[in-house]
Amino acid sequence: MSASFTLAEIAERCGAELQGDASCRVFGVEALNRAGADQISFFNNAKYRKFLRETRAAAVILHPSDAADCPCNMLLTDNPYLVWARVTNCFAPASNQEAGIHATAVVDPDARIDASATVAAGAVIGAGAVIEADAYVGPNCVIGQDVVLGQGSQLLASVVLMDRVRLGKSCLIHPGAVIGSDGFGLANDQGRWEKVAQLGSVVLGDNVEVGANTTIDRGAIHDTLIHNGVKLDNQIQVAHNVEIGENTAIAACTGISGSTRIGSGCTLAGGVGVVGHIELADNVHVSGASVVSRSLREPGVYTGGVLAMPHKVWQKNIARIKQLDSMARRLKALEKALAQLQGEQENSTE
Amino acid sequence: MSASFTLAEIAERCGAELQGDASCRVFGVEALNRAGADQISFFNNAKYRKFLRETRAAAVILHPSDAADCPCNMLLTDNPYLVWARVTNCFAPASNQEAGIHATAVVDPDARIDASATVAAGAVIGAGAVIEADAYVGPNCVIGQDVVLGQGSQLLASVVLMDRVRLGKSCLIHPGAVIGSDGFGLANDQGRWEKVAQLGSVVLGDNVEVGANTTIDRGAIHDTLIHNGVKLDNQIQVAHNVEIGENTAIAACTGISGSTRIGSGCTLAGGVGVVGHIELADNVHVSGASVVSRSLREPGVYTGGVLAMPHKVWQKNIARIKQLDSMARRLKALEKALAQLQGEQENSTE
Amino acid sequence: MSASFTLAEIAERCGAELQGDASCRVFGVEALNRAGADQISFFNNAKYRKFLRETRAAAVILHPSDAADCPCNMLLTDNPYLVWARVTNCFAPASNQEAGIHATAVVDPDARIDASATVAAGAVIGAGAVIEADAYVGPNCVIGQDVVLGQGSQLLASVVLMDRVRLGKSCLIHPGAVIGSDGFGLANDQGRWEKVAQLGSVVLGDNVEVGANTTIDRGAIHDTLIHNGVKLDNQIQVAHNVEIGENTAIAACTGISGSTRIGSGCTLAGGVGVVGHIELADNVHVSGASVVSRSLREPGVYTGGVLAMPHKVWQKNIARIKQLDSMARRLKALEKALAQLQGEQENSTE
Repeated sequence: MSASFTLAEIAERCGAELQGDASCRVFGVEALNRAGADQISFFNNAKYRKFLRETRAAAVILHPSDAADCPCNMLLTDNPYLVWARVTNCFAPASNQEAGIHATAVVDPDARIDASATVAAGAVIGAGAVIEADAYVGPNCVIGQDVVLGQGSQLLASVVLMDRVRLGKSCLIHPGAVIGSDGFGLANDQGRWEKVAQLGSVVLGDNVEVGANTTIDRGAIHDTLIHNGVKLDNQIQVAHNVEIGENTAIAACTGISGSTRIGSGCTLAGGVGVVGHIELADNVHVSGASVVSRSLREPGVYTGGVLAMPHKVWQKNIARIKQLDSMARRLKALEKALAQLQGEQENSTE
Repeated sequence: MSASFTLAEIAERCGAELQGDASCRVFGVEALNRAGADQISFFNNAKYRKFLRETRAAAVILHPSDAADCPCNMLLTDNPYLVWARVTNCFAPASNQEAGIHATAVVDPDARIDASATVAAGAVIGAGAVIEADAYVGPNCVIGQDVVLGQGSQLLASVVLMDRVRLGKSCLIHPGAVIGSDGFGLANDQGRWEKVAQLGSVVLGDNVEVGANTTIDRGAIHDTLIHNGVKLDNQIQVAHNVEIGENTAIAACTGISGSTRIGSGCTLAGGVGVVGHIELADNVHVSGASVVSRSLREPGVYTGGVLAMPHKVWQKNIARIKQLDSMARRLKALEKALAQLQGEQENSTE
Repeated sequence: MSASFTLAEIAERCGAELQGDASCRVFGVEALNRAGADQISFFNNAKYRKFLRETRAAAVILHPSDAADCPCNMLLTDNPYLVWARVTNCFAPASNQEAGIHATAVVDPDARIDASATVAAGAVIGAGAVIEADAYVGPNCVIGQDVVLGQGSQLLASVVLMDRVRLGKSCLIHPGAVIGSDGFGLANDQGRWEKVAQLGSVVLGDNVEVGANTTIDRGAIHDTLIHNGVKLDNQIQVAHNVEIGENTAIAACTGISGSTRIGSGCTLAGGVGVVGHIELADNVHVSGASVVSRSLREPGVYTGGVLAMPHKVWQKNIARIKQLDSMARRLKALEKALAQLQGEQENSTE
């Protein structure tokens, strides 16, 4: 049995202004061109205006300026995608976790588990760990010693938190994420590498989301810091002593090297690489697959890389990269020679 | 005790034409230059013709056109690598899994496990899950609610399938893979991010292979779709609502952004990045480490990027990239000025 | 209670020459500008000389040539970072693992576990596996059949070693790493892919470190080889039949394609991609995010790629890449035309 709501309830819960039938009952969400008479949809992209005009949805979330094109009930808002986010959460399947510790979980006697928390099958929790109220430790997660899992935070499945890692409230950690693994610190001894012990830890603020199979290393001396509201997608690597400012969002497959500080309100698209020991200002936005090799001190959009093209076009042109310096110098020489020739020409034709 | 076969059996099983001693018994496979008198090898690359001529193998799989260079029994075929694939499978160690549910596995009473399926130690299976005939759930795997694991599909170890994920028949999922984690959907509310619930799921067809630590996110409204015969290598990220067509193969470390549709019969080499909301036609082939930023509507090979060169060469040339536009304009101006000068010269020398 | 040492003990253990108060007792390590009177710090970067002069540390590890700027006890050495590495290890939290097999671990009766080894909760160990003295199998690790885990080697948590993988002594494997998954070997049969069985395994030497969520595939016929002292960071992919030479260090998010051989003493920075079937000589150093597409037979530093710049600069210039060949040809034509014009000019002005 799925949830249902009247449009009045939806408008109230999600912060939109209802225009239409308050008692109309909806059972789910759908795209404009597929929604039926008991579903809500949203309009946010002029490209789909045709679908808006023809939609059979019960109601559409949209900006007031698009109201004229909407043939059905409307949930009006300045930020349709935000209201959409809230509506989707109304229809998200409710968790049916029961509080308590599963019989197959292994909890150290010195760990402290709040009575309202859930520890699922196969989870292993070390000495001194604190699992706060309403927190959820999913199946086969491993929690080291002296870890703190804040109120309402969730580790979905097979997550590993190494010793002394601390998570704030309402964090959401997806399967396979590893937080608090050793930073990559090595000293060279005549060719052989000797390990630098990683004595810091990792601290996550509140409302941090960490994607599947993402890794966040512990600091060498101090802690790696992920501030409130940071959102990390899947397969991201955050090296030791990185600091990521509030509400920064980073897409999948991005790697941040050690000791780099990223400001707040930044976005890094997928596959970005950031070198170590640099700083990105607040509100820096990096395009996908770009490599950031120096501090970016001004907000703005930064991009790098050479995009894919037909292989033959690439092949013909890309080798010329190695001639760029020579080409630039020859171009300058030509300009000079031509100017001289023009001068002589003028003289000779005077 | 390893398996052994006569060459007649091998030819029959693997679809090659035997030329030589049908009763010769072989016990394994080896490279041309290392194979002994009880091993099969194969020849597929002209670079190794010398090794073919000198091989001591019991038999060699090869194309009829290379037969003249083969000093031993031959398994003739138009597709030596395909026959090789089949022969290697003859010698793969047999699984010794016994059907049944290990005593330490935790299976919800509302899950349905076929009697011929195997659930290994430490696996956790949620309510409503269906594990079909001959399927294998390896050690410490986690399977959410209402998951379907099709007939003969295998999760090797520590695989996570989140709620409602559905796999077809004969899929092979390598350790650490996560299927059905939340897509990265976020709405911005004056700087803070609010989560868009990911209400879709992930559907894999038959014969899909998913590599170690690869992640496939569930869709926002609809399902992420991986069609029959798709092969994904390790450490790949497939974002929400991606669709990958039949028999497409993708090498390691590639990332596919949300809502992108990849055709059938495509190959993406390692480390490729594909942006969201685009389409790749059938039979598109993308070279390693290329970034695809727009739809590729024609089959063919596409490439991008600047390959590694000695650092000093790179350093001298790469900064000039930022002058390319200026260089192109100056070049054009020079051509014009020169043409004018040539005209004047002609006039003055007439 | 944390460890403490006198400076005399530290100097002796870590191989530095003490200049100052031998009986001074220290309780930890800190950065120069934060260290207190019971902590050791180190100086290795001229940028921080100001902090050295003002430090309140008990002692500083530094090069004799910097001694004049140090206001406190000194631990003198030619390699301050190496001594620092050793000092950090003095203060690393001691493991409190007790030898033995946890009651919830599942160990095949045919596995052989040394009495001094530890097998933690939820670990699963297959038939024929050998766990040598002082080895550690962390919580929820999975070890396949006939695996060898050498003396003192550690699998921290949720590590998977597939069948027949062999680790030498004193290896350290971080959470989520997968060693011995199938290589990506596929033969094409009229559009469909058929799997090439991966019959080799993976062999790690002694003192190898493997980062969190890194994957190392087993070889097709022969073994994938990771030699003594190799250090792999997080999220690395090592494909089948790769060979990595002694003491090579590879940073996070790097991918090495199949059958490539990397020499000893190499460093690959983060996000590097290396194509298959090539060779990198000893002492090759590859800069971050570079793509290596051909063998590098000479030691040295190699770099590739176009670094991030303001998006508008990128946009204006990068499309010109596709005109590079044309630009180079036109430049040459201009040079020729100008030379001719200069000749004529000379003639006409004679």
